[in-house]
Amino acid sequence: MIAASYDRTSSSIAEIPSALNIRFIEKPEKKVLDDLLYFNGFSFRITGKYHQEKNFNRLPAKYEKIVRPAVWGLSKNSSGISIHFTTNSPVIAAKWKLMSYPRMSNMTPIAASGLDLYCLVDGQWQYVNSGIPSGLNNEKTLISDMDTCYKEFLLNLPLYDGVENIEIGINPNFSISAPENIIYKINKPIVFYGTSITQGASASRPGMVYTSIISRKLSVETINLGFSGNGRFESSVGQALCEIDASLFVIDCTANSHPDTIKNNTVKLLQQIRECKPNTPILLVESIIREYSYFKKSDESTFGSRKYILAQNNELKKSFNEAKNIGIDNLYYLESDGLIGYDHEGTIDGTHLTDLGSYRMAEKMETKIIEILKLK
Amino acid sequence: MIAASYDRTSSSIAEIPSALNIRFIEKPEKKVLDDLLYFNGFSFRITGKYHQEKNFNRLPAKYEKIVRPAVWGLSKNSSGISIHFTTNSPVIAAKWKLMSYPRMSNMTPIAASGLDLYCLVDGQWQYVNSGIPSGLNNEKTLISDMDTCYKEFLLNLPLYDGVENIEIGINPNFSISAPENIIYKINKPIVFYGTSITQGASASRPGMVYTSIISRKLSVETINLGFSGNGRFESSVGQALCEIDASLFVIDCTANSHPDTIKNNTVKLLQQIRECKPNTPILLVESIIREYSYFKKSDESTFGSRKYILAQNNELKKSFNEAKNIGIDNLYYLESDGLIGYDHEGTIDGTHLTDLGSYRMAEKMETKIIEILKLK
Repeated sequence: MIAASYDRTSSSIAEIPSALNIRFIEKPEKKVLDDLLYFNGFSFRITGKYHQEKNFNRLPAKYEKIVRPAVWGLSKNSSGISIHFTTNSPVIAAKWKLMSYPRMSNMTPIAASGLDLYCLVDGQWQYVNSGIPSGLNNEKTLISDMDTCYKEFLLNLPLYDGVENIEIGINPNFSISAPENIIYKINKPIVFYGTSITQGASASRPGMVYTSIISRKLSVETINLGFSGNGRFESSVGQALCEIDASLFVIDCTANSHPDTIKNNTVKLLQQIRECKPNTPILLVESIIREYSYFKKSDESTFGSRKYILAQNNELKKSFNEAKNIGIDNLYYLESDGLIGYDHEGTIDGTHLTDLGSYRMAEKMETKIIEILKLK
Repeated sequence: MIAASYDRTSSSIAEIPSALNIRFIEKPEKKVLDDLLYFNGFSFRITGKYHQEKNFNRLPAKYEKIVRPAVWGLSKNSSGISIHFTTNSPVIAAKWKLMSYPRMSNMTPIAASGLDLYCLVDGQWQYVNSGIPSGLNNEKTLISDMDTCYKEFLLNLPLYDGVENIEIGINPNFSISAPENIIYKINKPIVFYGTSITQGASASRPGMVYTSIISRKLSVETINLGFSGNGRFESSVGQALCEIDASLFVIDCTANSHPDTIKNNTVKLLQQIRECKPNTPILLVESIIREYSYFKKSDESTFGSRKYILAQNNELKKSFNEAKNIGIDNLYYLESDGLIGYDHEGTIDGTHLTDLGSYRMAEKMETKIIEILKLK
């Protein structure tokens, strides 16, 4: 009877004891094993962050006085930042301290405040498991019972929370280090400046924000400067873009910006980037059509109506043409048509992309990036 | 200046006032309009529920004494139940009272305790918007500014919460009623008995549980008897299956059942169904391979290892063959290979399906159902 040897003590959803009010919380790895050695996350390679300060904020400290307070606050969310390490330990665990552990209606706690781990398998990043948060301070085993070959891992940090600090735990007598050779197929990062969708609403876990899907698929570092509700083509953020030696700037701010804001800010932002980075391509992205707008009368021009969204995209297109006319070249444009498919199933709330929507958007954007960067 | 006419008061994410700590909660329809008339949900057509009792429980009251307490508790979650109505009102709102408003690590509040609304457009159900919960008692506008043509709507209820009661609000002087003609392409429901995945973990919103995707795609009523952590091929639930005049029974319990449980219960359940329903086809579904198991040593047989999952699927296959051998026909089998794709991106935590995973699983299952029911 092979069945007799199964360890039922670690069974979390297999056979739950009877109870009138089951609160389903999945913990495939619920016990943190004893005697792990923990190492500060900064001992390894940090990706998705362009500055060298010892924190997981997306903007360096000086930006507290440069960007609007809302952008500064959101820049402390660790969206798109990852820790890259190599280990031969059979167990990998994490201790992480969060800034806020928010309860959000359109995000899972795993996405907002949790972690997910990927491993490099045959040259491709493969999902391993998630780190499930349960409060401000967390300590979780991410994976156990692995073989002891050296493997390269990427640990993705929370999308809508800040990380005060994080440590990675392994078994004693095994080693962990920053990978020696980092070889991306595209050697400079792609930088995304955008909205809540760019920041990761409503991916199911950190690695499913569209910028990270693109990073894995195209083998490129991506820098996520998505600021929920606050992507507005601003020169204060443009200043940060100018500090990054990028292969491409993607500007995905349309959904957060009033048509007047797009009209007033876009060409100025493009001129600012072109002055500091004369040759770096720039991609402007239209807003998706919010799903509920298909049911609103087309003559309504309140926020969220088709008329409003079409006015936003129209101003973006006009800004694109104006920028071309004044000599800004290496400038590209991605229309919203088909960006999240045509079946209207890609959002959680009409606006924010589920993994299905993120995956489709990443695919469309990858095609455009391959064209712009003349890959393959 | 067309922009001057935009109503900024209803802008929720367009231009949020600056604040140091933005808590991003999307409320595309945040104000409930005054003077709506509310109607009890039971005034309309209830789908996804096989009994006639006036509640949104999935099992009738007598099952409190028949099924295990855990199953009975979970049967109060309204997963897969919808309210079907026709209205010409420009506004649709909902008031709903929940049983628990749980905080779950791998579910969004919208999926666990919220609503989503679909509208029949050219014979296809199209997503309209979500009802975002904020506590036990909720009152939210689902959509406004619609034209006043009659339209058919489907309002999907929470996946991991119970609904004490729900009312649907419309503008006065408009009408709302149960649709007169209900024409499904498959005229008897498909019944799913399964696990947390079947119940809807981890869809982003109620309509994205795989059983509801199948309902919309194939035009068939689906009855969701997924019991999180408690899908165990039990005769007590088999008794409920026997009460339903189904076109097909799908048994998706493998992931929740110890190999011994599969061995002991499956053939008995199939015999029970075959006795009460001599001709109704039955489809057995294997467990997906949990993503983290690819990284666990293959000689480990603890819960969640590949060896454990393969033993579960192996017992299912053996039970299938045994049932065939003792003369149970019209019996079908769906292997887990490719059920959620091959890129390892379909889960939130290695086990539970995101919308990407649900969508892929629904596609695979649709193909199988079309084959079994000889559609087209």
